[in-house]
Amino acid sequence: MTYLLGIDGGGTGCRAALADMDGHVLGVGKSGSANIMTDMNTARLNILDATEAALIAAQIDPSAISSISAVLGLAGANVGGNSAQLQAMLPFKNSLVYSDGVIALQGALGDHDGTVVILGTGSAFVSRSGADIRFAGGWGFNVSDLGGGARLGRDLLEETLLAHDGFHPSSPMTGAVMERFGGNPHRIVQFAHSARPSDYGSFAPMVFDYAAQEDKVALAILRKTVGQIEEGLDAIMAGTPMRLSLLGGLGPLYEPLLSPRYRARLQKPLNDALTGAVQLAVKNFAEVTVGVIYG
Amino acid sequence: MTYLLGIDGGGTGCRAALADMDGHVLGVGKSGSANIMTDMNTARLNILDATEAALIAAQIDPSAISSISAVLGLAGANVGGNSAQLQAMLPFKNSLVYSDGVIALQGALGDHDGTVVILGTGSAFVSRSGADIRFAGGWGFNVSDLGGGARLGRDLLEETLLAHDGFHPSSPMTGAVMERFGGNPHRIVQFAHSARPSDYGSFAPMVFDYAAQEDKVALAILRKTVGQIEEGLDAIMAGTPMRLSLLGGLGPLYEPLLSPRYRARLQKPLNDALTGAVQLAVKNFAEVTVGVIYG
Repeated sequence: MTYLLGIDGGGTGCRAALADMDGHVLGVGKSGSANIMTDMNTARLNILDATEAALIAAQIDPSAISSISAVLGLAGANVGGNSAQLQAMLPFKNSLVYSDGVIALQGALGDHDGTVVILGTGSAFVSRSGADIRFAGGWGFNVSDLGGGARLGRDLLEETLLAHDGFHPSSPMTGAVMERFGGNPHRIVQFAHSARPSDYGSFAPMVFDYAAQEDKVALAILRKTVGQIEEGLDAIMAGTPMRLSLLGGLGPLYEPLLSPRYRARLQKPLNDALTGAVQLAVKNFAEVTVGVIYG
Repeated sequence: MTYLLGIDGGGTGCRAALADMDGHVLGVGKSGSANIMTDMNTARLNILDATEAALIAAQIDPSAISSISAVLGLAGANVGGNSAQLQAMLPFKNSLVYSDGVIALQGALGDHDGTVVILGTGSAFVSRSGADIRFAGGWGFNVSDLGGGARLGRDLLEETLLAHDGFHPSSPMTGAVMERFGGNPHRIVQFAHSARPSDYGSFAPMVFDYAAQEDKVALAILRKTVGQIEEGLDAIMAGTPMRLSLLGGLGPLYEPLLSPRYRARLQKPLNDALTGAVQLAVKNFAEVTVGVIYG
């Protein structure tokens, strides 16, 4: 008996879905972070932990691991030789390592062509046209990831200090942020000194909440940010009838803010990224190409 | 015999000027970094090293240190209780600790009222009207310091990646940056992962150089950035005839880019920050207030 496995691994955790050769999920498991750029070995261990949990959930003997054909979608897989390096370290019968964006796109669009924008702490654009998959953005918090929660949160803190200095207008939102830091701008500076992207990202929901209340600073931040997202879409989708899905925690929050030309193409994601990984495992390892006889 | 001392201390180094009670400089010395927010004790040691070097240069016995009245302008002095804490640790007869912005303003404007914008790796606005000194900006690279070299450099790397993705137009400048990273965007990501503000700042001169050659991306970055600087000036100077000086390594580069309304008020800095510290020492410790008899 052989099995298929889908893995969805990122900075916050790793999920595994064990499936039969038709793609029916038999058991799922999860474990810790699996970003192969940050830490290859931790990623490998967490991939194996999640897989073992999925095997146990499916009541299948762990020794079956060597008969598994796996598709892994992992953060950091698109950098340098990371994928090949990990592939060689895995105990599965077959392993295919993709960027996490590829399984997210497959999950969201199924077999349709189109574009997904992943809007979580970071951001990334993934687009498919036939066999051609293109990535854009997603180069990280410091110099990219426009539209992601970390950039939104950082913008909010910057605007709060600009309002404190009287350089930009204040608003109920900047007042609320200042209050969270005890009215002391130096505490914002201290926070920013050691803040990770996810720490900045924790402020992102505030921007959407206050925008819903017509907060002028919140609206200005989102106007700028939606403009940046649409510049990306203009570059990728202009003049095509491609479908579009916004994924990640912030995806649904951005949907109503898009311009009509993109709102009209929005499709709810069909499935999640883990399901996308299982689908790709079916495609790569299980589908029998049926010969069709014409005539 | 008593002496005056001016100290100019920041992240990259500390300078000391020993002067007589009229403010005539007798000897100068320098040492390493003296940012009291980053490391109070290192700052203290480097202040003493620079002072000793100034005493030696002036051929004065180091034991004279206890008869010195000092004005220190230090990065990080405006945060919390830093100034008071350092003041208590110094061996001088009298010590006054100011933010580095205060001595820079005194040096640049002398006794005139007005505004200085310090544009180095970071940025800060300091403004004086009579006895009232106001600070704005300068909250650090992550959430402030608009117009500083680090922000310019980071903008340049961001634009280079946006051009790589086809989201924004490329230009000779973005091409040159990409070439510096071997044509590999992942190497920009790696650089950004561990880059300090000064590392980003090393790219700032490129932006001015290419703008002089009409590079469209360089011009767009500087147009945005000059706008941000002028928003600060609008808040501080609007409707006043105040004089304005741009200081720091980038100050002279920004001067020709300002709008006419601010270019008209530009004054070359009268002196440097170290001279400003000595002047403040004279004012605080040496000037005899002459009683005027009216009637």
